[in-house]
Amino acid sequence: MSTYRAFEATGVHNLQLVERELTDPAPGQVRLRVEACGICHTDVLAIEGLRADPSQPVIPGHEIVGVIDAVGAGVTTWQVGDRVGVGFLNGHCWECDPCRRGDFVNCLNQEQTGTTIDGGYAEVAYARASGLVRIPDGISAIDAAPLLCAGLTTFIALQQGPARAGALVAVQGIGGLGHLALQYARTLGYRVAAIARGPEKEAYARELGADVYIDSTSTDPGAELAALGGASLIIATASSGASMNPLVRGLAPNGKLVVVGAAPDPLTVATPDLIFGTRSVMGSLTGTPIENEDNLAFSLAHDIRPRVEVMDFAQAAEAYERMLSGQARFRVVLDVKAA
Amino acid sequence: MSTYRAFEATGVHNLQLVERELTDPAPGQVRLRVEACGICHTDVLAIEGLRADPSQPVIPGHEIVGVIDAVGAGVTTWQVGDRVGVGFLNGHCWECDPCRRGDFVNCLNQEQTGTTIDGGYAEVAYARASGLVRIPDGISAIDAAPLLCAGLTTFIALQQGPARAGALVAVQGIGGLGHLALQYARTLGYRVAAIARGPEKEAYARELGADVYIDSTSTDPGAELAALGGASLIIATASSGASMNPLVRGLAPNGKLVVVGAAPDPLTVATPDLIFGTRSVMGSLTGTPIENEDNLAFSLAHDIRPRVEVMDFAQAAEAYERMLSGQARFRVVLDVKAA
Amino acid sequence: MSTYRAFEATGVHNLQLVERELTDPAPGQVRLRVEACGICHTDVLAIEGLRADPSQPVIPGHEIVGVIDAVGAGVTTWQVGDRVGVGFLNGHCWECDPCRRGDFVNCLNQEQTGTTIDGGYAEVAYARASGLVRIPDGISAIDAAPLLCAGLTTFIALQQGPARAGALVAVQGIGGLGHLALQYARTLGYRVAAIARGPEKEAYARELGADVYIDSTSTDPGAELAALGGASLIIATASSGASMNPLVRGLAPNGKLVVVGAAPDPLTVATPDLIFGTRSVMGSLTGTPIENEDNLAFSLAHDIRPRVEVMDFAQAAEAYERMLSGQARFRVVLDVKAA
Amino acid sequence: MSTYRAFEATGVHNLQLVERELTDPAPGQVRLRVEACGICHTDVLAIEGLRADPSQPVIPGHEIVGVIDAVGAGVTTWQVGDRVGVGFLNGHCWECDPCRRGDFVNCLNQEQTGTTIDGGYAEVAYARASGLVRIPDGISAIDAAPLLCAGLTTFIALQQGPARAGALVAVQGIGGLGHLALQYARTLGYRVAAIARGPEKEAYARELGADVYIDSTSTDPGAELAALGGASLIIATASSGASMNPLVRGLAPNGKLVVVGAAPDPLTVATPDLIFGTRSVMGSLTGTPIENEDNLAFSLAHDIRPRVEVMDFAQAAEAYERMLSGQARFRVVLDVKAA
Repeated sequence: MSTYRAFEATGVHNLQLVERELTDPAPGQVRLRVEACGICHTDVLAIEGLRADPSQPVIPGHEIVGVIDAVGAGVTTWQVGDRVGVGFLNGHCWECDPCRRGDFVNCLNQEQTGTTIDGGYAEVAYARASGLVRIPDGISAIDAAPLLCAGLTTFIALQQGPARAGALVAVQGIGGLGHLALQYARTLGYRVAAIARGPEKEAYARELGADVYIDSTSTDPGAELAALGGASLIIATASSGASMNPLVRGLAPNGKLVVVGAAPDPLTVATPDLIFGTRSVMGSLTGTPIENEDNLAFSLAHDIRPRVEVMDFAQAAEAYERMLSGQARFRVVLDVKAA
Repeated sequence: MSTYRAFEATGVHNLQLVERELTDPAPGQVRLRVEACGICHTDVLAIEGLRADPSQPVIPGHEIVGVIDAVGAGVTTWQVGDRVGVGFLNGHCWECDPCRRGDFVNCLNQEQTGTTIDGGYAEVAYARASGLVRIPDGISAIDAAPLLCAGLTTFIALQQGPARAGALVAVQGIGGLGHLALQYARTLGYRVAAIARGPEKEAYARELGADVYIDSTSTDPGAELAALGGASLIIATASSGASMNPLVRGLAPNGKLVVVGAAPDPLTVATPDLIFGTRSVMGSLTGTPIENEDNLAFSLAHDIRPRVEVMDFAQAAEAYERMLSGQARFRVVLDVKAA
Repeated sequence: MSTYRAFEATGVHNLQLVERELTDPAPGQVRLRVEACGICHTDVLAIEGLRADPSQPVIPGHEIVGVIDAVGAGVTTWQVGDRVGVGFLNGHCWECDPCRRGDFVNCLNQEQTGTTIDGGYAEVAYARASGLVRIPDGISAIDAAPLLCAGLTTFIALQQGPARAGALVAVQGIGGLGHLALQYARTLGYRVAAIARGPEKEAYARELGADVYIDSTSTDPGAELAALGGASLIIATASSGASMNPLVRGLAPNGKLVVVGAAPDPLTVATPDLIFGTRSVMGSLTGTPIENEDNLAFSLAHDIRPRVEVMDFAQAAEAYERMLSGQARFRVVLDVKAA
Repeated sequence: MSTYRAFEATGVHNLQLVERELTDPAPGQVRLRVEACGICHTDVLAIEGLRADPSQPVIPGHEIVGVIDAVGAGVTTWQVGDRVGVGFLNGHCWECDPCRRGDFVNCLNQEQTGTTIDGGYAEVAYARASGLVRIPDGISAIDAAPLLCAGLTTFIALQQGPARAGALVAVQGIGGLGHLALQYARTLGYRVAAIARGPEKEAYARELGADVYIDSTSTDPGAELAALGGASLIIATASSGASMNPLVRGLAPNGKLVVVGAAPDPLTVATPDLIFGTRSVMGSLTGTPIENEDNLAFSLAHDIRPRVEVMDFAQAAEAYERMLSGQARFRVVLDVKAA
């Protein structure tokens, strides 16, 4: 094989299947045979032209599972044949101030998979060794892929606040991120509230771990949470600032709203709602590769799995549309290995 | 003395000198001879009719220093002659959930001095024993008064974030709260940035402890802070959501904006500004009476004092106007003892 | 009923059944009809004369569940008929420095149930209102009793360290405290190691939640934990300093050994074992009444129950001997209601 | 220059001046012209044969300041001419579990300067780039050297506990580490107690920042601290477990004893002293290179300097003896630049 197939995004909403030349990995990088790649809402950054230079083609996709088939110079801890994953952070630099403080998530020289560098809507992907995640046996590539971003993001967000054992924790949105957040929250022993639109998702939410279901189309979710005593932690996964605004009033004293879904519209908060109750709003992006390994081990130990719709690699464009239009009930994952 | 003089606020912007009957303190309360009372911007709640029922008269003022002259039933740890202070929280109930968790600031049955119960624009005041603050020798009533709210609020806010030793900490606004926050921040060993409107406050800010001065009328304070590496903690004291908005971008990774000034307009934050950088926005109201004693001991040990303009008790209405119109350069304090 | 039966401890190892006069509760206190009382190892303080003045009789027992049948003056939030519990801390004073800081566990004027004041080896008990724990429906008095001390102690200890989700947490000892700690640790999503003496307890430990079993009679538990990567948190429940010493080396970097079992012999730690690895050793006594309510709600939600051996109230002396001699396989609880 | 002079330690207490061949730095390393090197008590590891293989010669010294004169392959962020320091940790590996968690201090593949690899009793030293500390202008090599280990160790230890603003913080020992700890603690706004042997050090301790002086030869320092309300944090710098034992009883509720001085004898703690009071004992080794840069910036901003006795490079053996015998009143620093 001297070429591989990939989907390139260029401009706005233009995803094309192309043939790429196979190259050797750069120093510090590895090359993967991609087995599966999840479709995440953040892929809009690449495909809808929300990047620095949308005229430059990029391969989207940052929930990649594959097997290393070549190792660049200077890579010593990873080998050909290793089964690995790559999430949104495509390695860090070790040398900037945040890296020297051990805060790799805020690396100033980070590459973001599928956005600033090529991602996983492809048969082959390249990644910095510092961004690799060891995938344990016992989990399929299809199941592991969504854990690498949707999973990690919420796994980390749930650990951002000091919620006491058994405290009320709410998850807003039960899509790709939220349906995993519910499973994590239950497994961590929290009392779990799910907030979603419409009554029809209640059964699904309860099956995933929700003790309480709040339909935000018929009630004010902040008021509902307040009536339950307030949530110590709320994980907001919906890509809508407007939908987050009422949540602050649903926080218990000292509670924290952790925003993981970047929204086009801002979050608007009345300052007395923060001051009275000593409440916080925080953003959380993702975690580090070793935290992703923690996440995979945790998921494996507690039988946490994404709900997925598997689609063929060749259907990447249709898969993206399905996600974008909200038709996908679950996380869509491309089966690249079968391709 | 069977009556005492007090200023009552009724309706909107209507402050009247009245004569009140002297009564015995209720069980659990003490009665004070007021010596001094600071004028705080939060007095607008009482005087501008921003209370539950503005038609009911209330005596404003929640930076009260005085001497106990009567003790109610059940009060065992305070005695006639004790020199005490009362801040915004007029005691807590001990019995609600937050109180049982030791979180007295969020007591569900709290009285707020000068807002929900009578305050200190008066010769006599009443307070729950649980709200009392012991005033150490070595500080005058005039100097202690502003420390009880303006001081405590910023003293606590500065301890809300885990800023490492020597980190950059910014204080927005150098009025009643901010001019104390600068002194505290310097004394805690931080690198201190002051943000205020106009170039003419720079010398004053530097004298109070600022290492860096940012004039928000000529530059974007968020961009300025970012250029300095970002602030680990920003204390926002201005009563303006709009003025706080740009500050989030001035936070260092993992930094926190602590809002202490309740504003009529909301805080509006772009969610990516929170997510990229793992940043937080938090509200902080005040502290507990023993934390106020910590604050007084700290201020005494490090020679931290408010800058005050002393006015006669009889001039309370003029004093309030002076504060409200922004004419007061420093904290205005009523000298009630001399009255 | 004008009298009630109780077991008094006097001097050393001398427990006598006596008849006591029924009195009204003091101000701030309530009186309970005891339904059940657990037998805790700490009862040796009362019964083996390890108190300030062992010549004064005291009724042991601090895992009390009962129903309020009289309420003292000033008690407003509890009523006759309420089903309540009392643990080791028999209320706090609200007025000392730790209480004013909300740190009720370290109240300087605390009474310790069954040690400094009478406890629950009796048909009737008295307790300060501030020490009462609301017992939810759905749990029997027999099951609730051990949760009030053995349960609370380990529930709180498990929350003393910032162990990340899924981290390795070890519980040393699987007696009264340890067998509950294992259930809590599993429910909080940790990877759980149990450390006990002999191979025969392994099946029991695994049933309670252990993923790993370490027999400390055949291996060095510190070395075993280290071989697993080290524990982020170790809860030491054995009343033996010598048995704790090797555990420090089993801590992961930044790990914490939380000591809950007071031991007659000291803990002896090589300082390099603390310094290299940035490790900690901490003591943890108990929690507050509202934390006990959290604990009961958590236990109820996750079906956590003590394993108990029920004995008649009249057999209190035999029950104590059974615990002391190590014959009791599980927590011994006196059934006082049936008496 | 093709050779350089160095002092090699071999076996037990055998320090010899030797001539070494100048070599190029290995990949990932830099080579320094040493300007100054402090003499630390930990140098006994090298010189008294307390290493893995004392028969192998090693150059002691881990408080090194110098100028880079050669850069190895792969080093991109440091250049010839840069003024840098090297402390105890001679870089980390980036790839072990603690490094991937950002916990470089606990790197599993760390080199320890002057112990596992050659240090700074030499005209030339080599160091991994990841271990380098940028030295700011405005501080001399002689003054900077002791800050790199004695300073960093206590600077970090003071940040290990959440002591509230103005809390009582105690420093045990006022030698190389302690005399810097006192200055840091004062600058961080704490109320500072110094604990040392004999009355004659009181004036010196007060000059460095102590508000309280405790002579441990005439009083029990634990009891003295307890009488002051207890210390929230105690930094134990004396290399003696026995001297630390009484300190635990001097901790305030929730207080923490941070051990930084590795001692030949163990720390022995009664478990009730930990349990009642929820107290902790923790070890702290050092900090990261960027934390050392924080430390230097903090020291420079607040005019914190070590008290030093400067000796010629050729006198390294005498300098070590002076430190070891306790004759040195202050930190001894070798002036290598002048050599």
